[in-house]
Amino acid sequence: MEEIELRLEDRVLKALKEKNAAEIREIFDTVPNIDIAEALEGVDDPAALLFIFRTVSNDYTANFFAELPTEQQELLINAFSDKQLIELLDNSFADDIVDTLEELPANVVSRILKVCPKDMRADVNRLLNYKDSTAGSVMTTEYLSFLNTTTVKDAIKTIREKGRDAETVYTIFVRDSSRTLVGTVNLDDLIFAKEDQTLDDIMDLDFVCCNVNDDQEEVANMFKRYDLTAMAVVNNAKKIIGIITIDDVVDIIVEEASEDIAHMNAVSNMEDPYLKTPILKLVWKCVPWIVCLMVLQIGTAFITSTFEHLLSTCTILAVFSPLITDAGGNSGGQTTTLIVRSMSLDEFEKGDFKRVVWKELRVALIIAGVIGLFAFGWTFFEMAVLGMGDKPHLITLNGADNPVVLPETMTCLVISGLIGSTLFVTMIVSRMIGCCLPFFAKLIHVDPAVMCGPFTTTVVDVISLLTYFLLWSNVFAPMLF
Amino acid sequence: MEEIELRLEDRVLKALKEKNAAEIREIFDTVPNIDIAEALEGVDDPAALLFIFRTVSNDYTANFFAELPTEQQELLINAFSDKQLIELLDNSFADDIVDTLEELPANVVSRILKVCPKDMRADVNRLLNYKDSTAGSVMTTEYLSFLNTTTVKDAIKTIREKGRDAETVYTIFVRDSSRTLVGTVNLDDLIFAKEDQTLDDIMDLDFVCCNVNDDQEEVANMFKRYDLTAMAVVNNAKKIIGIITIDDVVDIIVEEASEDIAHMNAVSNMEDPYLKTPILKLVWKCVPWIVCLMVLQIGTAFITSTFEHLLSTCTILAVFSPLITDAGGNSGGQTTTLIVRSMSLDEFEKGDFKRVVWKELRVALIIAGVIGLFAFGWTFFEMAVLGMGDKPHLITLNGADNPVVLPETMTCLVISGLIGSTLFVTMIVSRMIGCCLPFFAKLIHVDPAVMCGPFTTTVVDVISLLTYFLLWSNVFAPMLF
Repeated sequence: MEEIELRLEDRVLKALKEKNAAEIREIFDTVPNIDIAEALEGVDDPAALLFIFRTVSNDYTANFFAELPTEQQELLINAFSDKQLIELLDNSFADDIVDTLEELPANVVSRILKVCPKDMRADVNRLLNYKDSTAGSVMTTEYLSFLNTTTVKDAIKTIREKGRDAETVYTIFVRDSSRTLVGTVNLDDLIFAKEDQTLDDIMDLDFVCCNVNDDQEEVANMFKRYDLTAMAVVNNAKKIIGIITIDDVVDIIVEEASEDIAHMNAVSNMEDPYLKTPILKLVWKCVPWIVCLMVLQIGTAFITSTFEHLLSTCTILAVFSPLITDAGGNSGGQTTTLIVRSMSLDEFEKGDFKRVVWKELRVALIIAGVIGLFAFGWTFFEMAVLGMGDKPHLITLNGADNPVVLPETMTCLVISGLIGSTLFVTMIVSRMIGCCLPFFAKLIHVDPAVMCGPFTTTVVDVISLLTYFLLWSNVFAPMLF
Repeated sequence: MEEIELRLEDRVLKALKEKNAAEIREIFDTVPNIDIAEALEGVDDPAALLFIFRTVSNDYTANFFAELPTEQQELLINAFSDKQLIELLDNSFADDIVDTLEELPANVVSRILKVCPKDMRADVNRLLNYKDSTAGSVMTTEYLSFLNTTTVKDAIKTIREKGRDAETVYTIFVRDSSRTLVGTVNLDDLIFAKEDQTLDDIMDLDFVCCNVNDDQEEVANMFKRYDLTAMAVVNNAKKIIGIITIDDVVDIIVEEASEDIAHMNAVSNMEDPYLKTPILKLVWKCVPWIVCLMVLQIGTAFITSTFEHLLSTCTILAVFSPLITDAGGNSGGQTTTLIVRSMSLDEFEKGDFKRVVWKELRVALIIAGVIGLFAFGWTFFEMAVLGMGDKPHLITLNGADNPVVLPETMTCLVISGLIGSTLFVTMIVSRMIGCCLPFFAKLIHVDPAVMCGPFTTTVVDVISLLTYFLLWSNVFAPMLF
């Protein structure tokens, strides 16, 4: 793969240098546009890029332009004559132009909008005004819709004439005289139908559509659920105003998954590939989260600080406190992960909160039992067999001034008992918190993924340390004295 | 939305009870199959389900059957006559049948394969034999391919006749006389072409295809990269043997993202929605990870245990040790997340490892500086202003028997200095570990996502605690005495 790409790069650059128009055309005929765009990475001579646009047929240029990085797009737009720019815009789809405009500097944008054909300018402005991440912001306004009384013959004729300008011709949207969406027809059904049938006769009535203000994640879930390749976008009056196609949905799904993954792990969402993100931007995506979590950690510091006297008389408590907090954090994180992913995939309906809590409670009880018992055995093994924990300090249980010497096995048993019971409580509490936090986040309109991992951990840490110290001073320490 | 679904459920059940064939047909005409399947959840009377299959047209039954849960599919298969079963199989696509077979008990599977039409049986067996998660396992063998010498007229005629049995007719695959894939034609190009042209004249040569053994994640990345709706699957001899369509790719992308998210957060991958997963299965998805991480935690326990004497003389160290390990874990987790996500999206090429490490090193240095300084100030604030840390113990720096009384501000400054410098080291180390672990995982053929979050944390914990205690006993403690 890599070998071929290297050769492609050399081939493209050589052809550009020699101004070999035939070779450039041959490359565009046989290689996907995105591979050529990548081979041209770093070329910043507008003349070379312009040569491509003069040489290659219009069938390729719009698509190729959309694959170029923002810097090269900007170079080209500045180098184009008005006529060339209009030609390019004419061949582009409105939603591709919107993607480009969102990244370009303002002066370049205004040049584009100035030369833009009037009808397209209206489309672009409409798309730009919809809120980010809504159906409206990803839809295209270039689609084919027909009156329900159109005959199959006329529909096919129109598709032949105007199909080139539509984002898809595989799904045809049927409306009544008031522009209300009444059905859809697949292109293959149209081809298989008799010429004198009307769309009314052959259209599917069990179509689904989305509202222009729906969240793009909901739209993606509908595509998955109904196995769609295109869907109509309607306004509140049920009139069709645009369509979304499956290639946009694939991008949405990837984008939403990346955002969830980033937020779950305390990183801000990355728009660009890792290697293309500037260093300072990477720093900025990470530092605020660490600072914020460090500040929230004051809870843990406060608890430990309050029970500091226990640590100084029984340092073995400090040896096992990371085990308690980590296990609690991991277990809470597991629950949050399962819940947040289910939320993203739209698995829950209204009123499912109670079902989730009840299910989690039962899961938590079993896990708490298993982990509590395991931790009891494992820490006993660590202390009694591996000799973990400094013996001279283990026996200064009553303070260094007045040491109490206890049988070692008895001490180990009591400490393991403390850890086992703390984990029993911690497992239940952490899973309950882990399952409630995402619902709470949704309630206050925060991305539930943000509540995952580190944030759950920080909350769970405080509670598990508190349990640890309270159980020790009130239940287990008295056993030894 | 919910209200409509409730009404649908009542409507379907009522129609079934009254054996109202007209109403059932009306429902299937106007409601998507998956919504009807959901409305029938819990119906376990085979007679009621059979009534649907007798009533509704064959256009719907195969698709509807595929949407039913395994239990109802099993009920139906046992209730069908051989003739009904054959009819159903005839209307299903091979890859849908494979999905069904993978979940059904063995005796039911053998009944299906016995009545299966011979050609379909061969297809199903071929798909079942490809390794899980490869292109072969998700492809379908039902597609249209034409010789390159076929005329547009003949191609359209064949599509009209056989198109119904193909998974897609929107992309047509063109092969030469040796079955080697030589090009693709979009249905719209075919429709727009002149009748006497051959496919050779109009086909795209810049198509991409995948090998039958390619990983499904790679295939999904190709669909995204090239904005495809269908792709040919070829064997090692470049002969076409199947196709993959975009609706399968949407499922793959969601599945792979879910797997990454689960593994990054120490949960095994869930195949079913949360609320449909049995409680014991949920326990089993979570417990082994916690146990495993608890066992690995022996490293942290060992380090703390080794330096236990430091803690007993200076318990303020225990107050801030969670801050050190948590910040290290979060920061390492951030890096791993960015790297693993980039790996999943196929952003790295061979040889990029060095570029990643060099970039991470620069990012880490900046973050270490910022966080080190912030932690210095923040912990000083916590101690000097908020009074965190038990004063009487703070001054027993030289052991309780021989306490040294120091000026409080001086002590706070030294402790903050310790924490700032430990975090400086920890930030660098954690990010370097966080960026190397996923590459290491790939090298030893383990899912890199498994290395995320909890595992990085466990490794980073040991190193940051070691740094903490060593810096204290060798650099900062001597300053005070």
